[in-house]
Amino acid sequence: MSSKFQHCLKRWIEKSEALKTELCHWETAAVSLGELSASPTDWQGARIQETEPLLAASVPHGYQKGDHFIVIFPETVVGRLHFKVIAENGYGDSPTWLRLRFAELPGELKHWDDPFTGILNCAWLQEDTIHIDNLPADVTLPRRYSCRYVEFEVLGSPGKVQIFDIGMTMEAAVQDIPVLPWVSSSLDASIERMCLRTIRNCFQTCPEDGAKRDRRLWGGDLRIANLLNHCSFKRYDLIERGLFLLAGNAMDDKLPGCVFERPTPRPGCLLHDYSLLFSVILEEYCRLTGKYEIGSELFDIAAEQFLLIQQYFHNDLFKMPSKNSWDFFIDHCRVLEKEAAFQGLAVFSLQALLRLGEALGIQESRLSSFRQLKERWLNAGRVAFYNAEKGLVICNGQVSYASQIWFVLGGLLTEEEGSRALKTIEGIDDAVKPKTPYLAFSLLEAYEKCGDTKAIHAFIQDYWGGMIAKGADTCWEAYVPDEPFFSPYDDFRLNSACHVWSAGAIWFLRNK
Amino acid sequence: MSSKFQHCLKRWIEKSEALKTELCHWETAAVSLGELSASPTDWQGARIQETEPLLAASVPHGYQKGDHFIVIFPETVVGRLHFKVIAENGYGDSPTWLRLRFAELPGELKHWDDPFTGILNCAWLQEDTIHIDNLPADVTLPRRYSCRYVEFEVLGSPGKVQIFDIGMTMEAAVQDIPVLPWVSSSLDASIERMCLRTIRNCFQTCPEDGAKRDRRLWGGDLRIANLLNHCSFKRYDLIERGLFLLAGNAMDDKLPGCVFERPTPRPGCLLHDYSLLFSVILEEYCRLTGKYEIGSELFDIAAEQFLLIQQYFHNDLFKMPSKNSWDFFIDHCRVLEKEAAFQGLAVFSLQALLRLGEALGIQESRLSSFRQLKERWLNAGRVAFYNAEKGLVICNGQVSYASQIWFVLGGLLTEEEGSRALKTIEGIDDAVKPKTPYLAFSLLEAYEKCGDTKAIHAFIQDYWGGMIAKGADTCWEAYVPDEPFFSPYDDFRLNSACHVWSAGAIWFLRNK
Repeated sequence: MSSKFQHCLKRWIEKSEALKTELCHWETAAVSLGELSASPTDWQGARIQETEPLLAASVPHGYQKGDHFIVIFPETVVGRLHFKVIAENGYGDSPTWLRLRFAELPGELKHWDDPFTGILNCAWLQEDTIHIDNLPADVTLPRRYSCRYVEFEVLGSPGKVQIFDIGMTMEAAVQDIPVLPWVSSSLDASIERMCLRTIRNCFQTCPEDGAKRDRRLWGGDLRIANLLNHCSFKRYDLIERGLFLLAGNAMDDKLPGCVFERPTPRPGCLLHDYSLLFSVILEEYCRLTGKYEIGSELFDIAAEQFLLIQQYFHNDLFKMPSKNSWDFFIDHCRVLEKEAAFQGLAVFSLQALLRLGEALGIQESRLSSFRQLKERWLNAGRVAFYNAEKGLVICNGQVSYASQIWFVLGGLLTEEEGSRALKTIEGIDDAVKPKTPYLAFSLLEAYEKCGDTKAIHAFIQDYWGGMIAKGADTCWEAYVPDEPFFSPYDDFRLNSACHVWSAGAIWFLRNK
Repeated sequence: MSSKFQHCLKRWIEKSEALKTELCHWETAAVSLGELSASPTDWQGARIQETEPLLAASVPHGYQKGDHFIVIFPETVVGRLHFKVIAENGYGDSPTWLRLRFAELPGELKHWDDPFTGILNCAWLQEDTIHIDNLPADVTLPRRYSCRYVEFEVLGSPGKVQIFDIGMTMEAAVQDIPVLPWVSSSLDASIERMCLRTIRNCFQTCPEDGAKRDRRLWGGDLRIANLLNHCSFKRYDLIERGLFLLAGNAMDDKLPGCVFERPTPRPGCLLHDYSLLFSVILEEYCRLTGKYEIGSELFDIAAEQFLLIQQYFHNDLFKMPSKNSWDFFIDHCRVLEKEAAFQGLAVFSLQALLRLGEALGIQESRLSSFRQLKERWLNAGRVAFYNAEKGLVICNGQVSYASQIWFVLGGLLTEEEGSRALKTIEGIDDAVKPKTPYLAFSLLEAYEKCGDTKAIHAFIQDYWGGMIAKGADTCWEAYVPDEPFFSPYDDFRLNSACHVWSAGAIWFLRNK
């Protein structure tokens, strides 16, 4: 395949590198010792109770081989752990060997030693063992972690050792969480704060999906990060860097689903939703910032995605090439029938492209084929999937929130039809629900498009409020209220508890 | 206690720091893959067989979670391990989690997971787990190891990873092993080379006892290192640094048994043999180098040790304050009755002090009290422990090599008596033998003092030759030919296989 954009890639990568920010660093001390216990009434059956305050972040006991203790940070922190170690008797003639386990949630620590069942790499679990050769020592761990709890276990030591000044050198592109104007309820304020902390923790040299995992830029996450940034930190440079990183890493003109920044920028896997949503990010970014020159620069590659995706459309209807392809995402839900939702998402993205094209003053001769494509996809989708009698989008016999949401957002349903569909589905017990705050964000967008402000607020209080009630102080990657151990990766310990795509509530709390 | 030397300590530490050398660095690549197997005929029941050469030190397979392999270095190496890692499919979306085990001998790897029974800190076992966050990666481990074999185990990885360019950045004060003139047998040549490699590996910013453990300066080891240095690397600065490190870390005028260099110089435990032997090192150093100004500077603190040790003498006889004190060393042997040996060692050391004093031209009025002390200890010791009838030194009913050796070296026996004792003990089945090449060195000195050159050479070929036959390429800290699992620390995995005090054979091969 010849590449239309090969000549642009180097420039885009250079632009992304020029936008790479210096990170902020600041200190957060561990505040107390904690005790882990089983607790059937708590989320994931685990609780970590504060037992003793840590004065000057110093553990008040000496520890030796076989001992362990948990320290608690005042919030979910992201950065490099550091602490000091001395030999209690001052001698310290041999190495100190420690195992450190970093947990975002108590359940991770509780179930750390359970057999690993995940489909992702177990090396994501935040565990490290270190040797400290010479005491007294001032230790800073080289890796970045995301955690609220750290378990120290002494595997070997020169007699008893004391561990003190335990702190995290925090690391993010932004530091101070903005103080926002008054919100209507204290729960809303807590949700906002949780969202802001999540955004802060994920805003690194680019907006990362999650600070623990995957620690990289994904297109779908960038779309949400762009909106959230606008109503919080306003660090548009990070978003712009994300756009250029995605564009600069196109493979055969296809925008990648994600990008690795380290050791040098390179594309990750394909994810077709995200290739199409690039238009949406770009249009929204230009509209929010007025920097339409970025739109001009990247319009063509955004548009190209719709030509490339056509291979998956037959008679204007999207068709999954295989049942369980990860290349078409929509949500972390294996039973989900995705064709209707993807059809809606494609139209939604194409509309954003057209809106951008118009705003850029691109000639109708260039836009018209896309306009026609949009009409054809919209009509074909409606005919194939909308059951006017039931008032629902039905995909291969399945009723899901995803299908309704993306048909609403894509304008494949009128406002009235959308309103009815979103009401009707509430009464359907076996309707497939969102598994992630990512799709929940789009549900809120759909409510908004249908003018249902009340539903938005009720859902936020129920869903994000539910996380808070279960102990969250950052937004969880996946959240199914009645499935504490749900994991897209078949092992809940792989789930990220601080995920930017999950902080979407603030957009609706702030943007009203 | 008021300190006579307090005002000198800072100056001595400064002198030691001024003598601190820059280390040499050079590369040694891993040369083959190895397979570990049980082998009853091999030392410690284990063998590592070379299976495939590593071309360009590159492992020719991809490895994933659960896989492990062993690489072999061409000799026992000391330094920082480095290697490269790539994802086999080029993707590498998540951390690579490796466990690395560094073994000097096959037996360590074979028995790695056995329950730990040692009385020292288990953190000495050379194991580390590391996470490599981003692939491709060029990894250099931060810690220094001593090993011939490295086992890599993949605990987690992004699919299969390839590991290549496995090498050790070697680290020592000296690099090139001197080419020595012709020796009489190829076994002698092998022994010399083994000794030289050992010395090289232990010569770091000071002469360390062992490169794996304890990685620090001990007085007794320095005595041997001083002699070996003279017939090999001739890096007298390292020895001089050692002398000033010991002197500068005196506590209440008592020279410490050992010194830690890191994070800043500080004294380790007391070991009374080594306090006294300081005189010997000093006298020998001055004699070998002609730098008598060092002798002048440190004579008084060397002499002071004999005044301080008097508290353990009653009627001029040394008395152990408690049966199993580690403070009086002689050898790593728990059943050893040490009083006669220590008496001999004290006289030996005092004679060195007097020799040094005479060489320095110190007035007889200053020396005479030491001369009297020596005569009294010598006579009292002879009377108490020498059984002229049996022709043996007998200590609390026990016949040991240690007692004969130190009585010979201290001149408590005549040459004829010594010769007879060393012959006679060979016929005594339950005589307590040396457990370490440290005491074996003194045995060779005793043979030499009695003029028994033949015995020296026979012992070297048998003892050091025995190590070589069992696979050694460096000299083992402890070696009891018929006790493969003997350990002074109750766990053979703690033993160091590259120990400077064990390289003494070369002094007798070279110094003839």
